[in-house]
Amino acid sequence: MVKYETQLDAIFTALAHPVRRAMLARLGTGDATVGELAQPFDMSMPAVTKHLKVLERAKLISRGKNAQWRPCRLEKAPFETASGWIDEQRSIWESRLDRLEDYLHTLEKEKGTRNDDE
Amino acid sequence: MVKYETQLDAIFTALAHPVRRAMLARLGTGDATVGELAQPFDMSMPAVTKHLKVLERAKLISRGKNAQWRPCRLEKAPFETASGWIDEQRSIWESRLDRLEDYLHTLEKEKGTRNDDE
Repeated sequence: MVKYETQLDAIFTALAHPVRRAMLARLGTGDATVGELAQPFDMSMPAVTKHLKVLERAKLISRGKNAQWRPCRLEKAPFETASGWIDEQRSIWESRLDRLEDYLHTLEKEKGTRNDDE
Repeated sequence: MVKYETQLDAIFTALAHPVRRAMLARLGTGDATVGELAQPFDMSMPAVTKHLKVLERAKLISRGKNAQWRPCRLEKAPFETASGWIDEQRSIWESRLDRLEDYLHTLEKEKGTRNDDE
């Protein structure tokens, strides 16, 4: 549970910056080198590296270990974790709506029974 | 576009903390006062207020204006914005897979034509 929460923290933190979202969108079209990822941004290399570290920590990207240019690759599992959490919230709202509906039906039935009695 | 990016920044930042996610899950079951939201956490009131401000900034919650106890209410639209962005990424991957598939078909067809020629 703590691990799941820590994962969600890392994933949502990583998604909370436009540069990192743009990098993920770029990687969605195929693997890229750090240079290719940095290219659209007016940004120092240390700043780019920092963003990549945040993405790596969230396991949203992985990097080739052997090749010298170590291409970045998108990892899809954390997207599932994030949208899974959002879906979980929706199911909380829906079960609340179901309970409200059940309660309304009970009220209506009780009202019907009372009217029959009168 | 800038507004959309700013919204995404605020929403993902708000979702990136376990206390704020727990508050949202609680509000999914119904409106709550600040005291009710704070109750499960061993946390000072200023810390609670700070988390609520982050949620308000992302428009994930709204607060009653008139009543003195100003209950907090969950707002669902930002959840749609967040999962919309995730779905957008999925459609990028899928169109990439479609393109790869088309390319493979072309290669196979070309190979077939070459074999016919031989």
